Amino acid sequence: MAQEKTTRDDNAFGIWEGEVTVPLPDRFDAQLYYIGRIHTPWKERKDCPKNARESEALCTIEVDPRWAAALKDVETCSHLVVLYWMDKSRRDIVLQVPRHYGVQRGTFSLRSPARPNPIAMSVVRLLKVNGNKLSVVGLDCLDGTPLIDLKPYFASTDAVADAVVGWHAARGPRK
Amino acid sequence: MAQEKTTRDDNAFGIWEGEVTVPLPDRFDAQLYYIGRIHTPWKERKDCPKNARESEALCTIEVDPRWAAALKDVETCSHLVVLYWMDKSRRDIVLQVPRHYGVQRGTFSLRSPARPNPIAMSVVRLLKVNGNKLSVVGLDCLDGTPLIDLKPYFASTDAVADAVVGWHAARGPRK
Repeated sequence: MAQEKTTRDDNAFGIWEGEVTVPLPDRFDAQLYYIGRIHTPWKERKDCPKNARESEALCTIEVDPRWAAALKDVETCSHLVVLYWMDKSRRDIVLQVPRHYGVQRGTFSLRSPARPNPIAMSVVRLLKVNGNKLSVVGLDCLDGTPLIDLKPYFASTDAVADAVVGWHAARGPRK
Repeated sequence: MAQEKTTRDDNAFGIWEGEVTVPLPDRFDAQLYYIGRIHTPWKERKDCPKNARESEALCTIEVDPRWAAALKDVETCSHLVVLYWMDKSRRDIVLQVPRHYGVQRGTFSLRSPARPNPIAMSVVRLLKVNGNKLSVVGLDCLDGTPLIDLKPYFASTDAVADAVVGWHAARGPRK
């Protein structure tokens, strides 16, 4: 069964009944550069696919020219790990109620963008590298999402075919 | 063949012949919280395993009490995605020469900690959750490494058994 992304949809910046927040720390500990942008067909959250496997849409990752030289050899990879920044997400929710499940879960048991550090991780299939632009399949984020990293995907360490997410496997059919 | 981690070893803060740096941007774009620490048996870089599959060492992920409630349901996961911060790494290297390969590669084709945003991603096997501490296997980082995220690993979207890293598959035997 495909992983279903737990977006917050119509209430993106609020919280739902059954959700719990904590006070955020007084200060941050580290800093990030946006190193590019992700171009997708989806301009609003409600248009995004529920998970990346629901879409075969072609997306384009545009790396800032500053970092373009770092793409050397990337074209030899069939798949990449993409890290990107869900810049519109709340960071203080520890217990959340994904709308389409209706059950309270811990943030670290979900792939929801609402998390202390709203970094999303997707595995994409790489179709083509053209200068500083990569054509890929397997993303489900909003158009314009900031890119923070690209990595080669190694099946030897990254692929675990028999991994189980128990709460997800045990849930009833989606209503 | 297992992925080999490309640490910079004895020259951790310098650069090697054949490596290329770029000027860093004037400012950062986003900020992170450290949400915990990773406890491993390795106190110095030279002691770390070359890749996570080389070690069956038991490691402990300690989540800050502030975020402990977010661990609800995590115990139902057989595997987790762990994101952590390689805080001792250079961020300006676009072409690098991993010592044990001796060939210049683009940063985004390597899993080296030296990258614009030094976020490492590892897939770990979860053995036990005890309060805010997780016992896991599959890490290769230094003791005390800052934790930045935990996610459930979904085989449906995260496991690609036939993925290939061409430059790695084609290289000769390691010397």
